Amino acid sequence: MRASIIRDGEFVVDRLDKPEPGPGQVLVRNLACGICGSDLHLFGMLKAAQQANMPGSDFVLGHEYCSEIVAFGPGTQQQLEVGQRVCSIPFLKTEDGQDGIGVTPQTPGAYAEYMVLSEEYLLPVPDHLSSQAAALTEPLAVGIHAVNKANLQGDEVALVIGCGPIGLAVIAALKMRGIETVLASDLSPNRRQRASMVGATELINPAETSAFDGLNRRVDEQSAPAVVFECVGAVGMLQQICAEAPAHSRIVIAGLCTDEDRFMPIEALRKELSIQYVFYYEAPEFEEALQALADGTIHWKAWLSGKVGLNGIADAFELLKDPESHAKIIIEPWRDGSLETISF
Amino acid sequence: MRASIIRDGEFVVDRLDKPEPGPGQVLVRNLACGICGSDLHLFGMLKAAQQANMPGSDFVLGHEYCSEIVAFGPGTQQQLEVGQRVCSIPFLKTEDGQDGIGVTPQTPGAYAEYMVLSEEYLLPVPDHLSSQAAALTEPLAVGIHAVNKANLQGDEVALVIGCGPIGLAVIAALKMRGIETVLASDLSPNRRQRASMVGATELINPAETSAFDGLNRRVDEQSAPAVVFECVGAVGMLQQICAEAPAHSRIVIAGLCTDEDRFMPIEALRKELSIQYVFYYEAPEFEEALQALADGTIHWKAWLSGKVGLNGIADAFELLKDPESHAKIIIEPWRDGSLETISF
Repeated sequence: MRASIIRDGEFVVDRLDKPEPGPGQVLVRNLACGICGSDLHLFGMLKAAQQANMPGSDFVLGHEYCSEIVAFGPGTQQQLEVGQRVCSIPFLKTEDGQDGIGVTPQTPGAYAEYMVLSEEYLLPVPDHLSSQAAALTEPLAVGIHAVNKANLQGDEVALVIGCGPIGLAVIAALKMRGIETVLASDLSPNRRQRASMVGATELINPAETSAFDGLNRRVDEQSAPAVVFECVGAVGMLQQICAEAPAHSRIVIAGLCTDEDRFMPIEALRKELSIQYVFYYEAPEFEEALQALADGTIHWKAWLSGKVGLNGIADAFELLKDPESHAKIIIEPWRDGSLETISF
Repeated sequence: MRASIIRDGEFVVDRLDKPEPGPGQVLVRNLACGICGSDLHLFGMLKAAQQANMPGSDFVLGHEYCSEIVAFGPGTQQQLEVGQRVCSIPFLKTEDGQDGIGVTPQTPGAYAEYMVLSEEYLLPVPDHLSSQAAALTEPLAVGIHAVNKANLQGDEVALVIGCGPIGLAVIAALKMRGIETVLASDLSPNRRQRASMVGATELINPAETSAFDGLNRRVDEQSAPAVVFECVGAVGMLQQICAEAPAHSRIVIAGLCTDEDRFMPIEALRKELSIQYVFYYEAPEFEEALQALADGTIHWKAWLSGKVGLNGIADAFELLKDPESHAKIIIEPWRDGSLETISF
């Protein structure tokens, strides 16, 4: 089969053996796979390791997938049929527990024509939902989980900082939970427009005005508690939040900051801030995400900015460094082809 | 009246005008006042300011007091009698809200013979409770508040890091809330002994063994959630907690860290830690603290390590830098006298 492989710090398209489904596993053909911000992080780390003369194994990314069943391994229940489109939480069951799919070299992901999944985790994708949309189940589940971990009472004023795919998912999940006032802050007009499409009620350009001025004003006007979702993942965001958020704010950190961060804890202490870090989701949240996409609750076109074949991934990764030009790019691993822009 | 004043970065005992109680205020004579860790912080800051040639106003500390009513100001209800012993949340009502007592130069505290309090906040101290014990109401309320903010379900394994007066208050409050397993970590044998007196079930010397090894073992054995109370307030504690606490731990930060702190947020993210900063308490928590001291729930002698007159405060502040020799020193502002050690 063909796959886009990170090898020696670069993407190459090459042939790999088609995987054999083991006990409880199914072989699937990948129809659509989103490029995740964490894929960009991982690629950067692998590239840096290569440049430091620490070569790693071949690595196949891809954990935001919609695929179709091709064949069943031994000991499977086979309640779904060959040809059925599926998605799943990106974990492969092992004897000891489970491995993340597309996040280690040992468990290849969906940047390839085929992969294996655990039958137990499969969810059928309804016929009317496109494969591109179904591939958004995973990032939407991240947003639903972040909002669930905030333990909302329903009367909160929410601020979402950063309107990349995860910020958009948080906004959409906040609207699913009935939060009326959702402020969305992003430097990019493109992303602010997307935030509006998924339900943000107030758009803020932080180059022009502080997102926290808006939040503090709304909190005062509505005598409402504040909840802040950090979806950027950059050094310094926590300090800005601690310094500028209203007292007693709940802070949910979904942004992946891989560097050491610095802040003045006295600000957090004086304001009695609470900070909840969030990562992944629970299986029911993943199911809820697929359901919300299928029943039309979620305006999923707000995420999509492009699609690309296997041989266009390196270019797509370059373009994704610029938030103005792109949001979510979907890979179609069954074909070659350079990037095509998708309009709203 | 005589007062211990921070003037030009040093403690001096001098005469000040006895304050006049304004509308809604009462004049009280101070019987006992604890020295708080935040007093040490404030003194250090004022000393540093003086050394940088930034002299401040005269400053009278003291917010952990038991006092007796001497006179009533205009417009007071006078439901308590002159001579009644009282304590109160350390706030003085103002037209705009309230000012902290003993934490700014404008609102002097109980390191003096007399001060004024807001009548509305006064709580009578039961006759059988000593003034020394009643002065512990304030730090105990901090512990009760910290434990309340942890939203315990009752099955948690708790680790308290740092067994100074606030750590002891947290341990006591955890036992009040029925938490069975309370690990207490402190470098000082003296403080570990005090922790045991207020109910810690496992004492850890972090110079010999990691407090988190104990916590992780208990969490595994009991399949219980972990809650960690940070009561040290030093740079680096947060990173240690993020690196070593079990996944999904709830962290409550009561330690006052006034410097910039650094940590790796990726650890907190992967483990989905939640971090609740806490500061002060609510009025009902203060009342509960006094009640718990009065009804014998709290083994208050575990806190006390010494008492001192007005002219011995400078020496007491020096001694409190060594956690092995002292825990809580009570000032008796109505007398002079050098430090006397109090044994358990």
